[in-house]
Amino acid sequence: MSSVLKRTIKPFLATRYALRKNWNRRSSTLGTSSNPAMQFPCLDKLEKKTAKLRGDGLEATAPGAKTTCSIEDATSASSKNDPVYEMVKSGFQLYKSNKPIFLDYGGVLPNFELAYETWGTLNGDKSNAILIHTGLSASSHAHSSSLNEKSGWWEEFIGPGNPILDSDKWFIICTNVLGGCYGSTGPSSLDPGDGKPYATRFPMLSIQDMVRAQKRLIDHFGITKLKASVGSSMGGMQSLAYGQLFPDSVEKIVSVSACARSHPSSIAMRHAQRQVLMADPNWNRGFYYSSEEHPDKIPPHVGMKLAREIATVTYRSGPEWESRFGTERLDDDSSPVLCPDFLIETYLDHQGEKFSLEYDANSFLYISKTMDLFSLTKSDTERSQKRRLRSESMFKAGIVPSLRLPDEPYKYKKKSRTTTIEESKKDLKDGMAPLLNKEILVIGVKSDSLFPYWQQREIVELLDGPNDRVKHVELDENTSLYGHDTFLLDLGVVGSSIGKFLRNEI
Amino acid sequence: MSSVLKRTIKPFLATRYALRKNWNRRSSTLGTSSNPAMQFPCLDKLEKKTAKLRGDGLEATAPGAKTTCSIEDATSASSKNDPVYEMVKSGFQLYKSNKPIFLDYGGVLPNFELAYETWGTLNGDKSNAILIHTGLSASSHAHSSSLNEKSGWWEEFIGPGNPILDSDKWFIICTNVLGGCYGSTGPSSLDPGDGKPYATRFPMLSIQDMVRAQKRLIDHFGITKLKASVGSSMGGMQSLAYGQLFPDSVEKIVSVSACARSHPSSIAMRHAQRQVLMADPNWNRGFYYSSEEHPDKIPPHVGMKLAREIATVTYRSGPEWESRFGTERLDDDSSPVLCPDFLIETYLDHQGEKFSLEYDANSFLYISKTMDLFSLTKSDTERSQKRRLRSESMFKAGIVPSLRLPDEPYKYKKKSRTTTIEESKKDLKDGMAPLLNKEILVIGVKSDSLFPYWQQREIVELLDGPNDRVKHVELDENTSLYGHDTFLLDLGVVGSSIGKFLRNEI
Repeated sequence: MSSVLKRTIKPFLATRYALRKNWNRRSSTLGTSSNPAMQFPCLDKLEKKTAKLRGDGLEATAPGAKTTCSIEDATSASSKNDPVYEMVKSGFQLYKSNKPIFLDYGGVLPNFELAYETWGTLNGDKSNAILIHTGLSASSHAHSSSLNEKSGWWEEFIGPGNPILDSDKWFIICTNVLGGCYGSTGPSSLDPGDGKPYATRFPMLSIQDMVRAQKRLIDHFGITKLKASVGSSMGGMQSLAYGQLFPDSVEKIVSVSACARSHPSSIAMRHAQRQVLMADPNWNRGFYYSSEEHPDKIPPHVGMKLAREIATVTYRSGPEWESRFGTERLDDDSSPVLCPDFLIETYLDHQGEKFSLEYDANSFLYISKTMDLFSLTKSDTERSQKRRLRSESMFKAGIVPSLRLPDEPYKYKKKSRTTTIEESKKDLKDGMAPLLNKEILVIGVKSDSLFPYWQQREIVELLDGPNDRVKHVELDENTSLYGHDTFLLDLGVVGSSIGKFLRNEI
Repeated sequence: MSSVLKRTIKPFLATRYALRKNWNRRSSTLGTSSNPAMQFPCLDKLEKKTAKLRGDGLEATAPGAKTTCSIEDATSASSKNDPVYEMVKSGFQLYKSNKPIFLDYGGVLPNFELAYETWGTLNGDKSNAILIHTGLSASSHAHSSSLNEKSGWWEEFIGPGNPILDSDKWFIICTNVLGGCYGSTGPSSLDPGDGKPYATRFPMLSIQDMVRAQKRLIDHFGITKLKASVGSSMGGMQSLAYGQLFPDSVEKIVSVSACARSHPSSIAMRHAQRQVLMADPNWNRGFYYSSEEHPDKIPPHVGMKLAREIATVTYRSGPEWESRFGTERLDDDSSPVLCPDFLIETYLDHQGEKFSLEYDANSFLYISKTMDLFSLTKSDTERSQKRRLRSESMFKAGIVPSLRLPDEPYKYKKKSRTTTIEESKKDLKDGMAPLLNKEILVIGVKSDSLFPYWQQREIVELLDGPNDRVKHVELDENTSLYGHDTFLLDLGVVGSSIGKFLRNEI
C-alpha cells in the first residue's frame, strides 16, 4: 500500500470500525464479496423486541384484561408538537348497557361497556352537557383529572375557565368509542357467547353504531338535549352522525377536519395500513391474544408499527417536513442504508415504534374500516336500518345474526362505479336532511391531505351554507402547516372558533 | 321461529351460505360466538401462493439466472389506462463493461452489464441519438421491436413517423438501469468476487451512477454528443443528471414529472414501501435467491405486493379515483370485510398482486432508495466525487472499498435539519450550474402528488427560466387527472410537447 493511500484513508481507520473489519477479512480478492454486506440495525431491533415479547409474555394482552392498550410515556415524543395520545388503563368511569345493541352491518353485541370521563358539573336542568368525540386512536382521556393526572389529548382545549371548552360552565363528557381498547367493548373484550376474546369475531361497526352507544350513556345521565356534540377527524364524523340520528337531542354541532363520506384516496391509505398489519404473521387473523392454552402468542407489533408509519404520512404535511427535516440524512458522510437514514425516516420510525404496542391491533383494523365506511347518504342509512331490524328479529329468535357474506369471495365482476358523482351527491344531501336546521360549525385545514379542505367545503355546501346556522372556518397554509394533526395543536383558530361558536359569538 | 321471521330471512337462506352454516351450528346461545367469525379470502390466497412457490420452486430466481424479473401478461391489466410495464427476459442487447465502476457512495462494481434496446438507425456522423431513461420499474423495452414484439412501456410515444419520437429520424436508445433486474447488473446478479448473487452486498447507487454507466454505452457507440436525453419520473432525474455530468455531450434535455432533489414527503412514501417489504420474512435481509443449498427460498411476494399497493397510491390522483370508483363497494348489501371490499381496494390489490413477482425485490429497494438520495446540490456532488476517488485508490490497492458505516447505529442525536431552506436552495443552484446553458424542457402535472408540480417549477426557477432555453409545460387538472402516471398516458400534451421541443418548435 502506498504512503499516499495510507494518508488518504487514515481518517477512516481512526474512526470507523467497518473498514477495519473488512480490511482484516480481505487479504486477496478471491472468494470475497466485492463490497461489504449491508447492515440492518432496524431489523435487529424488531427481532429483539419479538423475542422479548415472546419470552416475557405480555401482561396487557392476557385474556380478560379489560384493556389491551398500553401506557405511553409522554416524554418519549420526538417533539413538543407531536401529539401524544395519553393512553390510560384506568382513571375512567364505566357505563354498562345490558341491553343488546344491533349494529348497522348486521352484527350484534349482547351487551357492551363504554369507558368515559367527565369534566365540570352537570347543572340542574341538565342543559350544559357537551359530548366530545375522539379520533381513531384516542382514549376518553381528553383532559387530566384527579383520577388520571396525565395530560389528555386535548389538554389545552379543556379546563376551568378555558376559553374553548370551559369546564366551569360546561359538563364535558368524552368516551372511548365502541370498538376501542381503552376500556370500552371492542375486539379485545370477551364475547359473552363463549367467554373468549371476540378477536375477529367482533362484528363490523359503523360510526353511527358508535354514536348510538354514546346516546345510551347520554340517556343514562338523563340528558335530553346536548348543548353540543364536538369532534375532530373521526370525531367530526361522529358529531355529524349524532346530529343526523338525533337532531332533536343536540343543539350545536362542531365537526373539525372530517367529512360527510370518506374519499377513495383516504380509503386507499387506510387500506394499505390494514393490509400491512394483517400481513404480520403474529396478527394470526386476529387471534393473537395470549391465553393459558397459547401463552406464546404476541401482538403484531411489527405490523402495527408499519401501519402507524403509513398513517403518520397522512397526518402531517409536506411543507412542515420540508422545514423540519428537509432531505438531510443522519450523517451525510456515511453510506446510505435501507434502514432509516433520512431524518424524515427516523421520525416515521419513531412514530411507528411508539405506537406499536400502544393500541390493540384489532381495534385499529375495525375502527379504520369504520372510517372508510362512513357515509351519511340516504341509501346507506336505509340499508343499515333494514339490517339492524333484521338482526334484531333474528337475535330475538335465538339465531346468530348473519353477516351477509358473498357466495364466492373474489368472484365479483364490478370494476367501476355504477352511480354518477351527481346521483351520489344527491343521495348524500338527502341523507343529511335531518341536519339542515342545526347550528353547525365546520372547520377545515388546507394542508390536510387525509381529509382535504374541499370535503369540509362539501359538508357546508350540502347543508346550504355558509349561512346563519352553518359556519365555515378554513385554515390556510400560512395559519397551519400541521395538516390533519392541526386539530390537536391549533388553539388559535381551531380552538378559539369552537369557543366562540359555543358562546354564540360567531 | 315465527312465520313472520321466516318470511323476513327467507331471501337470505335462499342465496347465502354463511347464514345456513351458522344456523346449523347454533342450537342454543351457550358456548358459541355472538357473531360469525370473519373470513379472510385475501390471506387464503396469499398463503396458497406462498405454498405453491415453495413447492414448485421459482425458476426465475435460480442462481445465475440473468434476470429475476418475470414476464407479465399484458392482458391482466385492470383497465386500458393502467400502464403495463412490459417485462422482458430477452429481446434486448447486452453491453458489457469490463472496467470497474466506482460509485458515488463508495462502492464498486468490478464490471457490469447494461441491457439496452434501440429503434431507428444511427446516422453517419452519429448525431441523431436520443437516450431514453426509465422510471423505477421499467425495462429497456420502451417500444416493440422484431426481437420482442410485445408493446413497450412508451409504445405510443415511439415509432416510425411518430410525431413524438420518430424512429425514422432518430436513433433511440433505452437501457435497463444499473441496479435493475431486466438484464442489467443489479442485486440479483452474481458478484464476481465469489460467484454468488450480490443480494444486499450490492453497493448503494446514485442516479448519477446509473447515468455514468449509460455514458459508457454511449461512448461504446462512438456517439460524442446525444441529440437528447429524455426521461420521466426517475428518468427525468437521470436526464438532468446526464446534463449536469456531461453538459458537452448532450444537446437537449427533457425532464418530465421529476425533480432536482427529492422531497421529504416522497421519501416518506418510499420509506414506507421499503420497510414493509423488508418486514416480509421471505425477504431474509435480501438473501432470498434460491440455490442448490437453499432450494426452498422464495421471493418476498407479499412484501412486494404491499409495497406496490402503497406505491400505487402515489402514482394516481384522488379525483381520478373519485370518478372511477367513488366509495362504492363490491356489494353494498354484504357485510364489510377487512379484505378488499371497496372498489378502490380491489384496484390496489390487483395492482399489487400483478407486480408481486414481476420485479426483483432487492432491485426495488436499491432503486427506491436511489430516488430518495437524488440530489444535484454542489455539496452532494463534491462529497460523491471524493468517495469515488477514495474507493478507486483503495480498489487499486486490493482493498474492499469501505462503506462508511456509523460507529453506533441509531445513536445519532440529530433530530432536525441543520441548514436553512435558503442555504440548501443555493447549494442546489450551484450544483446545477453545468445545466445553465442547456436547452431544457421541463414538464409537470398538477395532479401529481409524488413529484408535485412545484418541484418542476423549482427546476425551471433554478435554471433562471422559463426563457429561450428553458421551457416549462404544466398540465392542469382539466388536462390530466392521472397524477404521476400521466407521463405514461398523455400523448396530447406530454407527448406532443416533447416532439415539438425536439423539432425546435417550442
